[in-house]
Amino acid sequence: MREPIDFYFDFTSPYGYFMSEKIDALAARFGRQVRWHPVLLGMVFKTTRTEPPVSVPLKGDYVKRDFARMARWLEVPFELPATFPIATQAAARTYYWLHDQDCALARRFAHAAFQALFRDGRDISAPATVVDIAAGLGVDAQALSAALQTDAVKARLKAENEAAMARGVFGAPYVIVDGEPFWGVDRLAQIERWLETGGF
Amino acid sequence: MREPIDFYFDFTSPYGYFMSEKIDALAARFGRQVRWHPVLLGMVFKTTRTEPPVSVPLKGDYVKRDFARMARWLEVPFELPATFPIATQAAARTYYWLHDQDCALARRFAHAAFQALFRDGRDISAPATVVDIAAGLGVDAQALSAALQTDAVKARLKAENEAAMARGVFGAPYVIVDGEPFWGVDRLAQIERWLETGGF
Repeated sequence: MREPIDFYFDFTSPYGYFMSEKIDALAARFGRQVRWHPVLLGMVFKTTRTEPPVSVPLKGDYVKRDFARMARWLEVPFELPATFPIATQAAARTYYWLHDQDCALARRFAHAAFQALFRDGRDISAPATVVDIAAGLGVDAQALSAALQTDAVKARLKAENEAAMARGVFGAPYVIVDGEPFWGVDRLAQIERWLETGGF
Repeated sequence: MREPIDFYFDFTSPYGYFMSEKIDALAARFGRQVRWHPVLLGMVFKTTRTEPPVSVPLKGDYVKRDFARMARWLEVPFELPATFPIATQAAARTYYWLHDQDCALARRFAHAAFQALFRDGRDISAPATVVDIAAGLGVDAQALSAALQTDAVKARLKAENEAAMARGVFGAPYVIVDGEPFWGVDRLAQIERWLETGGF
């Protein structure tokens, strides 16, 4: 059995959301599993001296147009939320807390959180909103709310973020297939070819 | 007759070189012409507070790998030159000076300059190298050398750069099809679809 594909993302990235809608099905076509890793791009951008694309002069207008066009290209429902970009600590911490109990549930939560933000326009920076989304999947809201306050849960996300950067993750989505890194949802066709042929 | 497609690039960008090998043939398939516009990304990056990708921590290693992989993906001969990235004032000024006399010759020069840098590893930041490449196409070396010293030629490039930024160009390659902007050679498939369908 081959190593799973690694998929790094930040819940605030539309391109990460698009990848989240595609990567599992693509991997499954080649009999492969995917490990999901939410990260905080804000921390990564400190290392890379980078700003969120929407904050960059000239580039900001372009990427908003590109988000919508890429959504149409990939046939993924999408609407840019009113509050954007957002902090995603609560969603990412929830993901890892769930993952340590039930990794399939964590995956369902990740889809629900992305869709809440990019289909329903909900501001998932608010812990209460994240807890509400998780509760909709049957998660114990009180236990999750308490967990989000703990140092252990905070440290877990920090460690995951550092591990991602140690693997070279400087942006998102970032996908690693058998050691080969692909940055951006625009590399989907190359990822597909790599899975088909083992490299090109 | 429809407006030509606009293609903005910096001679130091491998992704711009890849686009230069593809865009004319793609446009021709749809009966369209392409206007080429060399720009200086260094000036653009001052506005966008950006660094060359190869200079960014973590990202630098990735993009070098991505250059080579994208070249294989697009089946374009490519080798990263020993001196990279480079200043491209001499090449860009030469392009516009030639263009004002013979636009087909300017196009041939642009291909030759890109190929000198990314196939033969020649450092085209040196004006003498640029003049030598142009001379190989039958250009009067003395006249070109003299022209490159003039304020008019320098001002021409500056004006082109400012015009590009006024159109929203924040990176390269940057292609505009009927008002629709596409940043990056990774948007080639989308450009093709846009040309086929008039939008999606």
